[in-house]
Amino acid sequence: MNTSYRELKERLAEIVDLEKTAELLRWDQQVKMPPGGSAARAERLATLGRIAHERFVDPGIGRLLDGLESFEESRPYDSVEASLVRVTRRDWRKARRVPSDLLVELTRAAALAYPAWVEARQRSDFSLFLPHVERQFELRRRYVDCFDDFDEPYDVLLDDFEPEMRTAQVRRVFERLKAEQIPLVEAVGERGHADHPPGHYPVERQRRFERDVVDRFGFDPEAWRCDETVHPFESAPSRNDIRITTRHFEDSLDGLFAAMHEFGHGLYEHQVAPELERTPLCRGASLGLHESQSRMWENLVGRSRPFWRFFWPRLKETFPQALGDVETDDWFHLVNRVQPSLIRVEADEVTYNLHIILRFELEQDLLSGHLKPTDLPEAWNARMEEYLGVEVPDDRRGVLQDVHWAGGHIGYFPTYALGNVIAAQIWERVQEDLPDLESEFEQGEFGSLRAWLGENLHKHGRKFTTAETLERVVGAPLDPEPYLRYLRDKMESAYALPGSAGPSESSAG
Amino acid sequence: MNTSYRELKERLAEIVDLEKTAELLRWDQQVKMPPGGSAARAERLATLGRIAHERFVDPGIGRLLDGLESFEESRPYDSVEASLVRVTRRDWRKARRVPSDLLVELTRAAALAYPAWVEARQRSDFSLFLPHVERQFELRRRYVDCFDDFDEPYDVLLDDFEPEMRTAQVRRVFERLKAEQIPLVEAVGERGHADHPPGHYPVERQRRFERDVVDRFGFDPEAWRCDETVHPFESAPSRNDIRITTRHFEDSLDGLFAAMHEFGHGLYEHQVAPELERTPLCRGASLGLHESQSRMWENLVGRSRPFWRFFWPRLKETFPQALGDVETDDWFHLVNRVQPSLIRVEADEVTYNLHIILRFELEQDLLSGHLKPTDLPEAWNARMEEYLGVEVPDDRRGVLQDVHWAGGHIGYFPTYALGNVIAAQIWERVQEDLPDLESEFEQGEFGSLRAWLGENLHKHGRKFTTAETLERVVGAPLDPEPYLRYLRDKMESAYALPGSAGPSESSAG
Repeated sequence: MNTSYRELKERLAEIVDLEKTAELLRWDQQVKMPPGGSAARAERLATLGRIAHERFVDPGIGRLLDGLESFEESRPYDSVEASLVRVTRRDWRKARRVPSDLLVELTRAAALAYPAWVEARQRSDFSLFLPHVERQFELRRRYVDCFDDFDEPYDVLLDDFEPEMRTAQVRRVFERLKAEQIPLVEAVGERGHADHPPGHYPVERQRRFERDVVDRFGFDPEAWRCDETVHPFESAPSRNDIRITTRHFEDSLDGLFAAMHEFGHGLYEHQVAPELERTPLCRGASLGLHESQSRMWENLVGRSRPFWRFFWPRLKETFPQALGDVETDDWFHLVNRVQPSLIRVEADEVTYNLHIILRFELEQDLLSGHLKPTDLPEAWNARMEEYLGVEVPDDRRGVLQDVHWAGGHIGYFPTYALGNVIAAQIWERVQEDLPDLESEFEQGEFGSLRAWLGENLHKHGRKFTTAETLERVVGAPLDPEPYLRYLRDKMESAYALPGSAGPSESSAG
Repeated sequence: MNTSYRELKERLAEIVDLEKTAELLRWDQQVKMPPGGSAARAERLATLGRIAHERFVDPGIGRLLDGLESFEESRPYDSVEASLVRVTRRDWRKARRVPSDLLVELTRAAALAYPAWVEARQRSDFSLFLPHVERQFELRRRYVDCFDDFDEPYDVLLDDFEPEMRTAQVRRVFERLKAEQIPLVEAVGERGHADHPPGHYPVERQRRFERDVVDRFGFDPEAWRCDETVHPFESAPSRNDIRITTRHFEDSLDGLFAAMHEFGHGLYEHQVAPELERTPLCRGASLGLHESQSRMWENLVGRSRPFWRFFWPRLKETFPQALGDVETDDWFHLVNRVQPSLIRVEADEVTYNLHIILRFELEQDLLSGHLKPTDLPEAWNARMEEYLGVEVPDDRRGVLQDVHWAGGHIGYFPTYALGNVIAAQIWERVQEDLPDLESEFEQGEFGSLRAWLGENLHKHGRKFTTAETLERVVGAPLDPEPYLRYLRDKMESAYALPGSAGPSESSAG
């Protein structure tokens, strides 16, 4: 084995150890840490981040990468060796472009913006958050200025979450989604308002049912754990240490869908090839691909007829009081209800992307200066009316609802909708390859889906970009049509709306 | 402020961040981590340890320390500044003496010995553990050889846990304890065998009662948490992030005493002065002093009459079935029962030190070569018979019971008995300073004890050695007499054995 390669790998392994340690610290902070630990925890995280960053941007890494050019070329493109060198070179060049004083300012701005956002949201007073929005976009413009290889400034921000994807490509996909989804929301509007059966779902029973579901999906307590938090999330301190969280309300089963969603994220990290452990390739390739996995288990599996054919009798048995009078078909409608609403995280499959597109457009307008932060609430509310037909009663349920801008995560939102799009693309391929999938789901078996995803997607970790991944997995570029087909089929099946893909319940799952 | 001092402090703060991060990782490993995470966790810990060590032994730290000599002298001995320089110099000189290849071998030897010990204990087969005992003592002899400032080799090992204490001093104290405690064990033998009331203590109720106790002691959920583990322990990721663990059995209340014990450790870390956060002074001064705090809350408080005058009615109310027929006095006898037994961690206040002295003596004999590891079980069993009058039926309940030697923690055991001795010394002083302590305990109030300990001991963190601390707190060197007085008084009060300190229930608490 090439000694430079071995040295590079060892140096990166230490950096990964520090980053993964930070991931565990953040998990602990949100799940277990007593509140008093915050100040010291911030210092620990800052130190870990600083040491990892210093070690990574070290010129020695650059020299190793330079010396490894012919080694990289001598290895197949998809080998661990070539991929590690290629991806690290890309990461290193990006990291070297950002001066550390800007990084410090970004960190400080986020630390100041977060409590301001919490208070602004609580009081529903955008003016408290306004200076921080201004500051965040100003700093992001300085961040963009560190780079020169982009078509438009937003490309730089997007690249942090969706490597090598361009804004123009996302815009084309989103325009197509808008053209179809806005009318679909209007059409389904009158039929879609099915409420949750107004029942009482005791939390202990929810946990038991949910555990049965994720156990069958592949949640193995030897390598996974599940906790409760206000905001569900997934964390992977290592491949065999996958942590998901969920939450429960006595009057709804949302926690179940949160658990399936986070399971999808966790499975991606868990099934990365063991040989990638302690390398920078040991994680999902992009946020969009990650979200495609969570959406797949939550929606394409967890809101499908075959899934409920198996689980419905069990659910009814678990909550006989709440669900005794509900029929299978009603239940299928309920979990696929469509209802334009104010809050992104509560949105359904049909309306969700429109929440995202709105944010994607506003972010670009703010970055370019076409929109002034002070006019943001008005622009937000106008677009909510235009895309979803809902009136925003206050900023708390409008422009202040998301934490992302407080954290400086601009360019992050589009990955949620890309996740929906990619999930549907992959799903069409899964169904071609695994024709017995539906009957397996009907038996409560999910092993072949899990194995297919592991083999075709998860095991590669971060070796390939999203575009390369799609080319390998579905043989096509990013394409909104499978998602639109899926939506129309689902709506036809759930609401007897006119679809355009023929008799399609089977392909919609 | 001196710039060298500021630089030293900043460099040390980063090292403390890494060490405290490792502490959190170890807590997580024992309390929350899925078992599959072990291998990666070991790598993370190794990396954190390596980076912290490299940064600490850096010659730059030595240069800063050299340059700070006159600064140190210009500040009062007990100032943060002088203490930080003094203690760091001591730590740095020690750390520089041990070559990193020996550190690697020590780590590897412990990693290999641990599973061997687990298996040997399971099978009760010392021969499986023998080569590891040989290796550990061989490596510890090499470790001793790195130093030259000791009276006898064991000093070097002891110093890692009890800085600047010498073996000869411990030996003198232990000889005195032996001379008194062996006859005391014999005398109490026939009267001491009071069993736990054979009752059923539902775990949920134990937790509630225990929480009431530690809440009154000062457990504040803003800065503390409590979890369940097989082996109770305490961990302090930061001053306001104190984590204790306990365990519960349906047929005993041992978990309550474990919780009080770990609370004592936690309080020490919690009450270190805020200005010491992120310095190497932000922890207890030695293991002996630490143990004095856990023993104080467990035994001097938690097994005292005033404590039970308050809690007994509550305990009876919590467990009416198990305790309905038990009287206060009987209960006091039960929690203070004396019974020579095989297992150290289950030993009572009278027999405990003898378990320790046995190990202290055997460790010295093994280190010097007077005792061959192969003859260890025989030597162990002979001394158990001599000191405690018990016959060891197998090595599992004999020489294989403790994990310490597998981890290479030789020189650690004596600190447990020193904790008992120091606790009693401090306790006599506490009682002089706080004459109303008993009546406060009888009201379920523990605030003045907590404040006294904070002010006189805890706030100083690691500024002073044990000897310096004792001089400051009790105005005397290490002295076994207070402990022996306490024991005789307790025995007289609980078993009407002839004591030698006159009417003493009040001073024994």
